[in-house]
Amino acid sequence: MSQPDYVYFEDMVPGRVLRSASLPPLTREAILAFAREYDPQPQHLGEESAAESNLGVFCASGWHTGSLTMRLIAETTPIKGGGMGAGLEVRWPRPVVPGDALRVEIEVLEARVSKSRPDKGVVTFRTTTFNQRDEPVQHCTHTALFPRRG
Amino acid sequence: MSQPDYVYFEDMVPGRVLRSASLPPLTREAILAFAREYDPQPQHLGEESAAESNLGVFCASGWHTGSLTMRLIAETTPIKGGGMGAGLEVRWPRPVVPGDALRVEIEVLEARVSKSRPDKGVVTFRTTTFNQRDEPVQHCTHTALFPRRG
Repeated sequence: MSQPDYVYFEDMVPGRVLRSASLPPLTREAILAFAREYDPQPQHLGEESAAESNLGVFCASGWHTGSLTMRLIAETTPIKGGGMGAGLEVRWPRPVVPGDALRVEIEVLEARVSKSRPDKGVVTFRTTTFNQRDEPVQHCTHTALFPRRG
Repeated sequence: MSQPDYVYFEDMVPGRVLRSASLPPLTREAILAFAREYDPQPQHLGEESAAESNLGVFCASGWHTGSLTMRLIAETTPIKGGGMGAGLEVRWPRPVVPGDALRVEIEVLEARVSKSRPDKGVVTFRTTTFNQRDEPVQHCTHTALFPRRG
């Protein structure tokens, strides 16, 4: 494996947009496996139970979408020593269904040097996760600590 | 499996607190498996890489903690036809480490009948996920649609 191209606080300039590659299409089996372990609700457990559910559509757990987005973020903005996420706010405007190939756009909103840890920067960024029809399936605003370059 | 004891909009009375059972202690292997698939950052990939990471502690991905909390919520407040989560806000005040046995407390904050879907109610609730030392490891505020009874 080649050395990742690390991203530092100084790279996270407000207004900058970083784009991930697309994940392979999400399989029915992957949706089921995640749901059985973490979100056993009828809309996530198969076409039949989903058809009778309140949502009416067989789709991935929002936590599955969020976790896949985390992977895309970690691959698109790899941080030396790892990111330190403080918290986030997330919305799921549209279900993720089998066959969807997800990708993410990361937009830097704010960046400032940490007062308590001057070797780090506090970055607020918005991620939008899209399906292969370029429809947003998740909106998220994150705050995380990034190491400073040098 | 017995029929779950479904929770309806009318059960979600502001001020009410519902408590889950505890999950079994989270294993090192489960933390690693989740991280390899969804959050491959050094603090989640083993004791050695974590020791050199920015956080310095081998711990579960926040998305793992959130997904385990989702399971506890689904088991503690099962919704006939499934819950419809609109969005949430989450913070992770403390790392989840191998051996931690998580449980959740669910506090109802607000509940109102939906204007656009009068057969449903919109409920805002706060969940606090605790470890076995009763230390909070996740704070989350959720908004979701619940079916009305009857």
